[in-house]
Amino acid sequence: MTNSPLLVSYSELVQRFRQGTDTPRDLLERCLSTIESRDDELHAFACLAVARARLAADASTQRWRSGNPRSEIDGMPVGIKDIIETHDMPTGMGTPLYDGWMSRRDAASVQALRAAGAVIVGKTKTTEFAGSHPCDTRNPHAPGHTAGGSSAGSAAAVGAGMLPIALGTQVVGSILRPASFCGVVGYKPTEGGIHRGGSHDFQSHSCIGLLGATLDDVWLTARVLARMAGGDPGKHPLHLPDGTLNPVRPSTLTWLRTPGWPVASEEARQQLMNFLGRLRSAGVRIISAHEDAQVAAFESLLEASFDVCTDIVAYESRWFARNALERDAQTVSPTLAQVLARAEALTADDYAQLLERRQALRNAYDTLAASRRAPFLTLSATGAAPQGILHSGNPIFNVHASLLGVPALSLPLLSDQSMPLGVQLIGARHDDATLFSTAAFLSCLSA
Amino acid sequence: MTNSPLLVSYSELVQRFRQGTDTPRDLLERCLSTIESRDDELHAFACLAVARARLAADASTQRWRSGNPRSEIDGMPVGIKDIIETHDMPTGMGTPLYDGWMSRRDAASVQALRAAGAVIVGKTKTTEFAGSHPCDTRNPHAPGHTAGGSSAGSAAAVGAGMLPIALGTQVVGSILRPASFCGVVGYKPTEGGIHRGGSHDFQSHSCIGLLGATLDDVWLTARVLARMAGGDPGKHPLHLPDGTLNPVRPSTLTWLRTPGWPVASEEARQQLMNFLGRLRSAGVRIISAHEDAQVAAFESLLEASFDVCTDIVAYESRWFARNALERDAQTVSPTLAQVLARAEALTADDYAQLLERRQALRNAYDTLAASRRAPFLTLSATGAAPQGILHSGNPIFNVHASLLGVPALSLPLLSDQSMPLGVQLIGARHDDATLFSTAAFLSCLSA
Repeated sequence: MTNSPLLVSYSELVQRFRQGTDTPRDLLERCLSTIESRDDELHAFACLAVARARLAADASTQRWRSGNPRSEIDGMPVGIKDIIETHDMPTGMGTPLYDGWMSRRDAASVQALRAAGAVIVGKTKTTEFAGSHPCDTRNPHAPGHTAGGSSAGSAAAVGAGMLPIALGTQVVGSILRPASFCGVVGYKPTEGGIHRGGSHDFQSHSCIGLLGATLDDVWLTARVLARMAGGDPGKHPLHLPDGTLNPVRPSTLTWLRTPGWPVASEEARQQLMNFLGRLRSAGVRIISAHEDAQVAAFESLLEASFDVCTDIVAYESRWFARNALERDAQTVSPTLAQVLARAEALTADDYAQLLERRQALRNAYDTLAASRRAPFLTLSATGAAPQGILHSGNPIFNVHASLLGVPALSLPLLSDQSMPLGVQLIGARHDDATLFSTAAFLSCLSA
Repeated sequence: MTNSPLLVSYSELVQRFRQGTDTPRDLLERCLSTIESRDDELHAFACLAVARARLAADASTQRWRSGNPRSEIDGMPVGIKDIIETHDMPTGMGTPLYDGWMSRRDAASVQALRAAGAVIVGKTKTTEFAGSHPCDTRNPHAPGHTAGGSSAGSAAAVGAGMLPIALGTQVVGSILRPASFCGVVGYKPTEGGIHRGGSHDFQSHSCIGLLGATLDDVWLTARVLARMAGGDPGKHPLHLPDGTLNPVRPSTLTWLRTPGWPVASEEARQQLMNFLGRLRSAGVRIISAHEDAQVAAFESLLEASFDVCTDIVAYESRWFARNALERDAQTVSPTLAQVLARAEALTADDYAQLLERRQALRNAYDTLAASRRAPFLTLSATGAAPQGILHSGNPIFNVHASLLGVPALSLPLLSDQSMPLGVQLIGARHDDATLFSTAAFLSCLSA
């Protein structure tokens, strides 16, 4: 399914660094070589920092050699979505308005990665202000297709094997959908779990997350971010336990069809049904709205989630969208102008009601999740990445975790039209750890 | 007490604009003339935008003439604290690290002011990253004394009559203390009530507020900010009712001594006692810890508030303080380096406990406030602005409203050593309206 040469997890690479049979510098050179051969076609990167990355990789090589790594991800080559600030590279935000703009600081997440010894390779392309207007990034599995958005460059870079991992952000479907399309693991943490400082992200349920070649790398990196950057101010950071990631088989899993199900492709639905069959064969009981009235009631509440999510996001986009139009309306996409028009039609009372509806959905989900003790399972997208790069695909399977503020993972375990498709697990608030251990079980099952 | 030529409230000026006996352009010229005569000594401004301000004032003059003002503060000359972003002026943050830095956007608050027709006159000086290390701003009532901090330039500009109003921010005591020292009205709203986007303000209980020559101007401007910028994402904006600000006499007021009382100057304490006497004479019953066990119990809880507040702020300063040290340690003040050292000694568990202690104090305050229906009264500072400009004064009277996330006003009604001293009113969460109407009563009483 994937042509990534990086499917060896970092935990395994680290054994080789220790033994001296591989080095962070060699790993970086393999990444740079793939970037050289593929990025002219894929346009995953907005900017590269090759010389500084080599220096950082050499320093990491020395630390592993002398037995003093800074963290479990020391030497990991990382890409940074280009709405997240870096002191040594411009932050372009996918708009001409920010061409060459220097913030003079590292985002909290980037600062944590550097402190952990990670090697910042470059900035990965984003849609305009991480919204719906696309960038020119192409899908590594079929360059005539979209990589998804808004974390397009991060997904494409990882899917093409240019990088083992990259930072992304999500407020609607900007991590899970491109992860599904590009055949990589996507992780959106519990709201507030990773410090958003220095990301273009001043929205109430947005978050910083990860796109990675392996679940293990995503887990290791998320743990480092939580430990070294902390959570958002006033919030608790993610809690991911020490030690290795162990698969845990759940006794039951709840299948949520969500409002995406009727618009998913035939093949995507069949793939999910087959996957549920394999879970049953492995001894997991699958519960759905068919036989569980509580689930059916929650599914009907979810009907409203797409509109509530996109209206909240539109309203909270007013500040930066107005700024963009005031600075230079010629550079603003019609898509963003439409989002602002939608926002300007909402009143403060409308917004207050939207927040109340979100809270009601959160309360209902938390009650349901507390009665389950295992994540919920659904598709990550309606099917394979659509053809063309002018539209980044339908986020209908992604809005729920965003709106609810709960953790979700997309695992590249299915396919549609011979292209990747993700299985999505949605976890309980603040229980990202169970989400990961369940995901590890699903990944083993599939392997 | 004050030498401000701007003590005419904007509501009155607007009558003259309508009658054609004054114009926003003339008002601006009076401000510019005071800036010219006083700012060489006081250093209130980091940057001025004279030509653009004149254009904006002329446009406002036309709007009033044609009866189409954009808002009740159309034409109001405003200063912007230099940690709040403006697309057309650098945002220097009181540190050489940000000399000449352009953010390419207006903060949400600045965007709202422009949309309301306000005239942005310049950026006002701030201490380093709005922390404790001072800038060179001097007190307009005694230039050998500090103007306070961190909103030093905003307080000095308003206190000297250079501007009727300016934006400030507070996370410890950065609005209320300089307001007290410079003899102006200071307002710190309920947490989340004014959108902080584009302010160097990524801390959990920080806020954007105002320093103004008159209570009425502060109230008008706060209402415009809430209406046009909204609150923080996910929060409700301030609610201040339409119409004019009417004084309301409370039947009782609760006097909180707070941990500041024992270190306040003799004269400051005597002034407050005299003021309480005038309130009693006006028919207001004064309650204190002496005769009210609930108040006494809350006062003892407040003993911890200074340390809890400053530890939370230190911990949440890690991101930007680390950035500053990583970029150029030579430019970082020993004060900020100490804050970071204090922060680095705190663990994530320590921080979680601090947040719990803050929440417990908030719950106790909300319970007490709900039983009172009127604001609490105390001093705004331990006394007059101290001599010298190397220390911005003691925030011990200001931490409570910050930590509790509740609204507070400092009113320039007292004096110490023939310099200004503020009376502080602290209100109930989300009831900024009652805070203002009570403050209006206190101001009438004093006049």
